Amino acid sequence: MTTQQLIEQIKIKKSFLAVGLDVDLDKIPKHLLELEDPIFEFNKAIIDATHDLCVAYKPNTAFYEAYGIKGWMSLQKTINYINETYPDIFTIADAKRGDIGNTSSMYAKAFFEDLNFDSVTVAPYMGKDSVEPFLAFENKHTIMLALTSNEGAFDFQTLTVDGKELYKQVLETSKTWKNCENLMYVVGATKAEYFTEIRKIVPDSFLLVPGVGAQGGSLSEVCKYGMNANVGLLINSSRGIIYASNGTDFAEKARAEALKMQQEMEGIISLKF
Amino acid sequence: MTTQQLIEQIKIKKSFLAVGLDVDLDKIPKHLLELEDPIFEFNKAIIDATHDLCVAYKPNTAFYEAYGIKGWMSLQKTINYINETYPDIFTIADAKRGDIGNTSSMYAKAFFEDLNFDSVTVAPYMGKDSVEPFLAFENKHTIMLALTSNEGAFDFQTLTVDGKELYKQVLETSKTWKNCENLMYVVGATKAEYFTEIRKIVPDSFLLVPGVGAQGGSLSEVCKYGMNANVGLLINSSRGIIYASNGTDFAEKARAEALKMQQEMEGIISLKF
Repeated sequence: MTTQQLIEQIKIKKSFLAVGLDVDLDKIPKHLLELEDPIFEFNKAIIDATHDLCVAYKPNTAFYEAYGIKGWMSLQKTINYINETYPDIFTIADAKRGDIGNTSSMYAKAFFEDLNFDSVTVAPYMGKDSVEPFLAFENKHTIMLALTSNEGAFDFQTLTVDGKELYKQVLETSKTWKNCENLMYVVGATKAEYFTEIRKIVPDSFLLVPGVGAQGGSLSEVCKYGMNANVGLLINSSRGIIYASNGTDFAEKARAEALKMQQEMEGIISLKF
Repeated sequence: MTTQQLIEQIKIKKSFLAVGLDVDLDKIPKHLLELEDPIFEFNKAIIDATHDLCVAYKPNTAFYEAYGIKGWMSLQKTINYINETYPDIFTIADAKRGDIGNTSSMYAKAFFEDLNFDSVTVAPYMGKDSVEPFLAFENKHTIMLALTSNEGAFDFQTLTVDGKELYKQVLETSKTWKNCENLMYVVGATKAEYFTEIRKIVPDSFLLVPGVGAQGGSLSEVCKYGMNANVGLLINSSRGIIYASNGTDFAEKARAEALKMQQEMEGIISLKF
C-alpha cells in the first residue's frame, strides 16, 4: 500500500485507528479455547467486527512467537485473512527487528515478502545499515522506534547527545538514509508534549502512536500537537479494544470501543479539515 | 545452563567458539535442497562435525523467519537436536528482541520456554522495562547489544551522551537492573581497541563477539584486550565456518575451519591460564 492510499483510507473512514492484535491465550474468551486455532478465530472475529472503523491492524509478533510454530501459523492465517478479505487495510508487523545488513534483509524478506505485511517496526540502535535493507522495498513502510511509550524510554532515548536528545538525533540521522521516504516513526502517546518538537524534525512523516488508552495517553493531546496536513498519525489501541469483554460478546464490545475511538477521531478530523 | 557450567565447558574444550547458524538456502550445498528440510539437515551436519570444537551455537532467527512456518520448524528442530544430542552446548537465539514489558515477557517465553534456548540477544533502546522480563528467568542469559560490529554502530552507539559514549552508558545503566547478573553483552570484534574501556565497566561479564573472520576482526587482538579471569568471551563465527565449502564436503571443511579457530583459542588459553 502506498502512503497516498493510506491517506485516502483515513479520509474515507474518518479514522486513523490501528487495532493492536496482541493475543494472549490467558485473556481471550474461554469458549474459543476449544477451537483448533483460538488465536486466529479471536482475530477473525475482532477484524470482522472492527474493519470499517480502523485503517490498520498491528499484530505484535511476540504474542505469536510465544506459542511456537502454532503461533506463527496463527500469524500467517491472520495476515492472509486481512489481505484477502479487507485489502484496503494497512498492516503492521510489530516486530521491532534490526540487525547487520544481510540479516536485516532476511527480516525484511520475512515480513514484506513471506508474510506480505505493508510495514514492520524496527529498532534504531544498530544504525543505518540495519535499517536501509527494509527501506529498499517499494511501497512497503519501515516504522522506526523514536520515542517509545514505556518508562524505559527515559533510560536512553531522552539522554542528551551532542546538545539534543537521542530520539531527536535518531529522527534527524534517519532523514539522510537511502529511501527514507519509506520511514514512519513510533512515538508514544504518553509524551504528548514532545510532539511539537518531533514535528519540527519530521513534519510530513506518519507517526505510529501507542499508549492511548491502557497506557494513559490522551488522543486529543496527541492530535493537537502531532497531526499534520495529511493527519499523519496512526493511533494504536490494543488491550482497550480487543479485551473489552472476555465473554461471548467480545467482538461486539470490541466494536463498541473501536467505535468510540473512531467517533472521537471523526470529530477531530472534521474540525481540522 | 549456568555461567559456571559454561566456564567449565570452555576449560574442557579449550575453546570459546560460538558457531553462527545463519543458514541461507542460496548458499548451502545444492544436493541438500532435495531433502525435506534442507536447513535442518545442513545444521545437523555442521553440528555433528563441530560440536567438540565449540561451546555454543547461535542460530540467527532472521534466517529462519525468512522461510515462514517451514523456517520456524527448522529452527525448532535445530534447537531440539542440540539440546537432546549435545546438552553441554550453550545455545544462543540471536533474535535482537525488545519491547514494552508485557511484550518482552512473551518474547522471553518464546525463546526460553517454548524453544528452550539458554540465551537470547536483545536491543537496549527501550530501556530497563524492556530487558528485565528476560532477566527474570533463572539460569537463562540475556545478551544485550552494546557495541556492534557493523558500520551503523557509529550512527548512535558511539555518540557522546552526558560526557560518555552511548554504549558505555548502556553498559553502566544495565548494571543497576534487577537480576543483572544474567546479562551478557554483544561487543563487535572490529573494534578491539574498545575492549579495554568496556572491561573497566563490566570486568566479569561474558561478551559475545561477532565480527571475527568475514567482518575483519582479529581474534588475538580481542583476546588481548577483552579476556578476563574466566575467559569471559564467546567468539562467534558464522559464514567463515558454515560456508567454508558448498560441495558435498561442506561439513568436513566447516570442521577444518572450526578446528583452526579452536587451536588458536587453545594457544591463547594455554598462555593465559
